[in-house]
Amino acid sequence: MTQQNYTMLCDFYELTMGNGYFCAGLSGRVSYFDVFFRTVPDGGGFAIAAGLEQVAEYIRDLHFTEEDIEFLRGKGVFNEEFLDYLRRFRFTGDIWAVPEGTVVFPGEPIMTVRAPAIEAQFIETFVLLSINHQSLIATKANRIVRASEGRAVSEFGSRRAQGADGAIYGARASYIGGCAGTACTISDKLFGVPAGGTMAHSWVQMFDDEYEAFTTYCQIYPRAATLLVDTYDALRSGVPNAIRAFKEILLPQGITNCAIRFDSGDIAYLSRRARKMLDDAGLENCKIVASNSLDEYIIRDLLHQGACVDSFGVGERMITSKSDPVFGGVYKLAAIERDGQIVPRIKISENAAKITNPHFKKLWRLYDRASGKAEADLITVYDETVDDTKPLEIFDPDHTWKRKLMTSFTARPLQQQIFRNGELVYDLPELSDIRDYCMREVDSLWDEVTRFENPHNYYVDLSQKLWDIKHELLGSRRKD
Amino acid sequence: MTQQNYTMLCDFYELTMGNGYFCAGLSGRVSYFDVFFRTVPDGGGFAIAAGLEQVAEYIRDLHFTEEDIEFLRGKGVFNEEFLDYLRRFRFTGDIWAVPEGTVVFPGEPIMTVRAPAIEAQFIETFVLLSINHQSLIATKANRIVRASEGRAVSEFGSRRAQGADGAIYGARASYIGGCAGTACTISDKLFGVPAGGTMAHSWVQMFDDEYEAFTTYCQIYPRAATLLVDTYDALRSGVPNAIRAFKEILLPQGITNCAIRFDSGDIAYLSRRARKMLDDAGLENCKIVASNSLDEYIIRDLLHQGACVDSFGVGERMITSKSDPVFGGVYKLAAIERDGQIVPRIKISENAAKITNPHFKKLWRLYDRASGKAEADLITVYDETVDDTKPLEIFDPDHTWKRKLMTSFTARPLQQQIFRNGELVYDLPELSDIRDYCMREVDSLWDEVTRFENPHNYYVDLSQKLWDIKHELLGSRRKD
Repeated sequence: MTQQNYTMLCDFYELTMGNGYFCAGLSGRVSYFDVFFRTVPDGGGFAIAAGLEQVAEYIRDLHFTEEDIEFLRGKGVFNEEFLDYLRRFRFTGDIWAVPEGTVVFPGEPIMTVRAPAIEAQFIETFVLLSINHQSLIATKANRIVRASEGRAVSEFGSRRAQGADGAIYGARASYIGGCAGTACTISDKLFGVPAGGTMAHSWVQMFDDEYEAFTTYCQIYPRAATLLVDTYDALRSGVPNAIRAFKEILLPQGITNCAIRFDSGDIAYLSRRARKMLDDAGLENCKIVASNSLDEYIIRDLLHQGACVDSFGVGERMITSKSDPVFGGVYKLAAIERDGQIVPRIKISENAAKITNPHFKKLWRLYDRASGKAEADLITVYDETVDDTKPLEIFDPDHTWKRKLMTSFTARPLQQQIFRNGELVYDLPELSDIRDYCMREVDSLWDEVTRFENPHNYYVDLSQKLWDIKHELLGSRRKD
Repeated sequence: MTQQNYTMLCDFYELTMGNGYFCAGLSGRVSYFDVFFRTVPDGGGFAIAAGLEQVAEYIRDLHFTEEDIEFLRGKGVFNEEFLDYLRRFRFTGDIWAVPEGTVVFPGEPIMTVRAPAIEAQFIETFVLLSINHQSLIATKANRIVRASEGRAVSEFGSRRAQGADGAIYGARASYIGGCAGTACTISDKLFGVPAGGTMAHSWVQMFDDEYEAFTTYCQIYPRAATLLVDTYDALRSGVPNAIRAFKEILLPQGITNCAIRFDSGDIAYLSRRARKMLDDAGLENCKIVASNSLDEYIIRDLLHQGACVDSFGVGERMITSKSDPVFGGVYKLAAIERDGQIVPRIKISENAAKITNPHFKKLWRLYDRASGKAEADLITVYDETVDDTKPLEIFDPDHTWKRKLMTSFTARPLQQQIFRNGELVYDLPELSDIRDYCMREVDSLWDEVTRFENPHNYYVDLSQKLWDIKHELLGSRRKD
């Protein structure tokens, strides 16, 4: 499977604006756009950035076919010279972004695009949808993985995903967030997310008898037998039949690794009862897998109630991030270039929360030297450097009297250059490396930031220079 | 864009079961699977079926490439003869389904698949994800369209969709549900969902001055000028600048059709104030468009508060069905064939709600002759016919003492044959025809069924024959 050409997956206004810039002679005006989000889903303390690889492939492949141009001509609103220009349209700009798997916070430039207006404007929709989707699922998956306290979590949600890409890239993102694997076969083939699975209820129903279904499965897959025990009556029929099948087929071959799965009912009760039945039968190595509309809250409750579950299969509530299914990343103009100078731009609006941070910026993370933990992030103007050999005073951009002196810290710039003059200059990491990096990223946070309810509000501050520029723009606009 | 080959978009257990059926000599056992769902999203009274066209294309194109087979071999669990069989794997069975746009209710077979076990099992994931996704969005869109009381609703959510297909097919589904159009360009090209759009805040920010941004736009698009007025200050700057631009550029050309859009703030207040300003300026034909995290509840409130909005742009809350983002369609074995006889199958489980309706079935809708309104649905065994020339007593399958005598009614079978012996025998309708049909379908419901809160529980009953078969199976399983 090669990725689709998603050039035409754009909001129509990107084309009307593009045509407008073209007609107004502004198409070449170099512009800076930031991708950022305003709130963490589920009231969490942080998010995980993902989806960059698909953005990179999209940008690299960007082009209009003759068929696309013919379609656009039929809309009757575009200038012929603009349509002709689209034939040669490529992305020629620069992109910086935080690597996939990076922990990110509201208001931070996850990605910055510098390109002629027409190009920078055009990529908005796909950039956002890829980053919004995969960041959403990686963030949710990480919550579920943390709730599972070391037990493996498998992604089981393809059938409830919002479209094929929801399944395919959702499995990728949930792996970045820490899942052990997926049920989605194509995501294994495409990205190496380990795919696994054994049986549905239909396997059991296809036979006249549950016991026959189980023994047949054990004969075919002696080393990977996870038997689904709740087709008829889990404790009276499913578990006893599974025990019988394991003892008759597997134990004589010296195999003790096997598993049962519950997909309904009271998992806390059923798993404790089943654990005892399995242990009493000498099947201490038999694992118990649970699925059935799980998420981080239910898993936490199950474990709190002593559920004897060794691994979880999590479906619809992870693949759609059901409790909060939108990651609200936006794409906002931050600056333009004029006569070689960068001129910052701001968007004000009635909602204070929708006011943007202007200018071409850099994003830094400040770590406490002693603990290695992330203490605060700092957004600066592009030409500033954070010198971590000297003390640094940071301050809350809304409540500027809240100040903190950082004395022993290291500063790490978070964005990396992805495209330079339209060329992909970033080595896309292996997915398993992204996942490892993500685990280290989450480990670098204090517990106060990672808890599910009322997490600590991690500091994301502006440098004095950037704060001054922002407030100067706010003041001048208000005088309009 | 040609559709991807999604053969490998399957849950891995479909392959392990397939290999298992193959090894156990069951792969050719003819099996019947139903697609049905258990609850309507958002507590609604009905859902709208969608996604069938994509299922049809998927089934038609189903095949494994050599690369797929090589990948599967590498998993180390599949029989070589099975892998060889996959080279020739095609769908050879029958499929019946309700047409897209049909109103459907919990427990009803939206689709029925009859095929050799290995084939019927294999298509589960894609069938479900396509129908679940598009039915979810069509159902949500229809709620939002109904809340808008005749005002046009445009789908604006691509950037917040869960992946590219979430955007592309979400736009398609929302059009089926009654939206007037979309911002998603590719969905216009692929399916003819009318795409439109004008400007983002960045258009305004790209200029030194809001007024210049507006006049430039009006000059380029005199007949399609929708000016976004909330970049700086909607009532003090945006609306006055828009009025000035309309009067200076459009009115001299005799053009009075124009519009403004609010994307933030208190839409009820802003739109009423703006309406007055526009009317006072002689721009009575200027329309007001509103966007900003809308859904059916907010739109209902806005209209209740007298918002002067002519059309709505609805984004993230429709494209993800944010308030309830999962459509829980399932795919369950209902029967197998043995010696030419159809043998019904049932799944019991601990959760009473997860008990299935067994057997190869037919789905009927019963309409009141006088009003033309849908009164009840009836599920029968495949070989039954509903004779609407005679009175018919229907009864609640859970509370069998609740009975109703239908006297003057018409009966319509809802499923149509889509595939016969692996051949697509169904003429896929035009999207606009699906949309028209959907509107008629919703019109056939009583208001009691369509209201948002606590809708009337529409009757979905079983024929006496089907009820008897189900309860016989329940009784015999319980005796195990």
